[in-house]
Amino acid sequence: MLDALRIGEGEDPRLAERETRSRLGLGKKKEGYAALEELKDRIRVLQARLHGAGEQSVLLILQGMDASGKDSMIRRVFKGINPQGVIVHPFGRPDDGELARDYLWRIHRNVPRRGTIGVFNRSHYEDVGVVRVKQLVPDEVWQRRYRHIREFERMLADEGTAVRKLWLHISYEEQRARLQRRIDDPERNWKFEFEDIDARRDWPLYQAAYEEAIRETSTAHAPWFVIPADRRWARDVAVAEILVEALEQLDPQLPAADPRLAGVTIP
Amino acid sequence: MLDALRIGEGEDPRLAERETRSRLGLGKKKEGYAALEELKDRIRVLQARLHGAGEQSVLLILQGMDASGKDSMIRRVFKGINPQGVIVHPFGRPDDGELARDYLWRIHRNVPRRGTIGVFNRSHYEDVGVVRVKQLVPDEVWQRRYRHIREFERMLADEGTAVRKLWLHISYEEQRARLQRRIDDPERNWKFEFEDIDARRDWPLYQAAYEEAIRETSTAHAPWFVIPADRRWARDVAVAEILVEALEQLDPQLPAADPRLAGVTIP
Repeated sequence: MLDALRIGEGEDPRLAERETRSRLGLGKKKEGYAALEELKDRIRVLQARLHGAGEQSVLLILQGMDASGKDSMIRRVFKGINPQGVIVHPFGRPDDGELARDYLWRIHRNVPRRGTIGVFNRSHYEDVGVVRVKQLVPDEVWQRRYRHIREFERMLADEGTAVRKLWLHISYEEQRARLQRRIDDPERNWKFEFEDIDARRDWPLYQAAYEEAIRETSTAHAPWFVIPADRRWARDVAVAEILVEALEQLDPQLPAADPRLAGVTIP
Repeated sequence: MLDALRIGEGEDPRLAERETRSRLGLGKKKEGYAALEELKDRIRVLQARLHGAGEQSVLLILQGMDASGKDSMIRRVFKGINPQGVIVHPFGRPDDGELARDYLWRIHRNVPRRGTIGVFNRSHYEDVGVVRVKQLVPDEVWQRRYRHIREFERMLADEGTAVRKLWLHISYEEQRARLQRRIDDPERNWKFEFEDIDARRDWPLYQAAYEEAIRETSTAHAPWFVIPADRRWARDVAVAEILVEALEQLDPQLPAADPRLAGVTIP
């Protein structure tokens, strides 16, 4: 399944041609949920090994349009996983201290410790995404960031972090329905921002910006995955699969048991 | 003067062939002190503009053998400069939290804010220096760090930091004299570590490691300077010159005065 979602080095993701409602060959929702539970069992085992080995880490970077489901995915995939080993970091508008340094400063500060899984809800890709669309910096500034980002992620990978980048891919119509629900549902009201309407008007600009960013920064050491995200359950299974694959690739090895342990009984 | 000290991109610094006792054409110590005071006046003016503009920063990275004078240079060049705009960060042995992330994590955390001058007393170059000599990581790990470092410093430069790297170059004999003084002088005793003797025994290995690191990482955007450092006063003048040149190259522009200020008298 993952090969179809993974973007190769230099590959154009052609977002408009990619399905947003795919079931990923998983059948119905119920089968999807069952698959997710199995994947979570696997994550729990691998997470314990990652922690025990204490040498490597995983970093999942989430991007997507407003209402693409970043928060709901995090809740659904990570509930039931030991929270001591998962650190979710949301990146909102940079604060004064963050703006006083380069755009990767706050990102680097929050990379996961060895032995843990980090989840970035938005990231440095905003600095070539919304920053580009809203023309917050001159073109040459965001253009040279692709190289910075590729090399930053290469360094992380070289030093022991499995970096995986996920574009939660929803349709324009699905976004409409979800934003409308935010307005209509009193429990979801607080999430609605009028700015989301501006961003929706700029949909083609955002799609084009991310299409380019994905093409420019998908690498063997830190690949992008475009995840059909109109169906929450299929999206969740895909993300869990990506996490399992990343953990399996790291293949964390527990330290060898102390030979003096053999036959020891606690008195 | 600086052209002779600057290492070009890909240039071999040939440390053994470089003078350590040069007067840099400055004449006697007295003339050197006078030159330093003039440079400090210039630094004070430029520092105020850097702060007022609040867009850019300077990062001086200091490396050198034990007793090469990093601490004394910082004290002598920066006393009398507004300390609010100069942040000195010494990098000793990484602590547990630092070891739990990649080697550039603690470096990046401490880069100077816009409008300030940062001074790193040791740096990420230890991760291709002492880490290499003491074989703390496999060869392929430190070898690929040259690229990380080049690209990290490129990003800093692109985003507004003038990076200058200084090797304080002393002779083997001068190090002997200075270490002996640490032993003999009760006010300096505390600085002496028995490890310094081990490092002195490995002098050729350290020189070779830094020679390679300088060659691999001197770039147009973040050049290395090899500074003759047996004479403190000449060393200080050279460092101050480098700082002035960096500030002048940034050429910080104060924001235009608010036109409403014209003729305003505070009542």
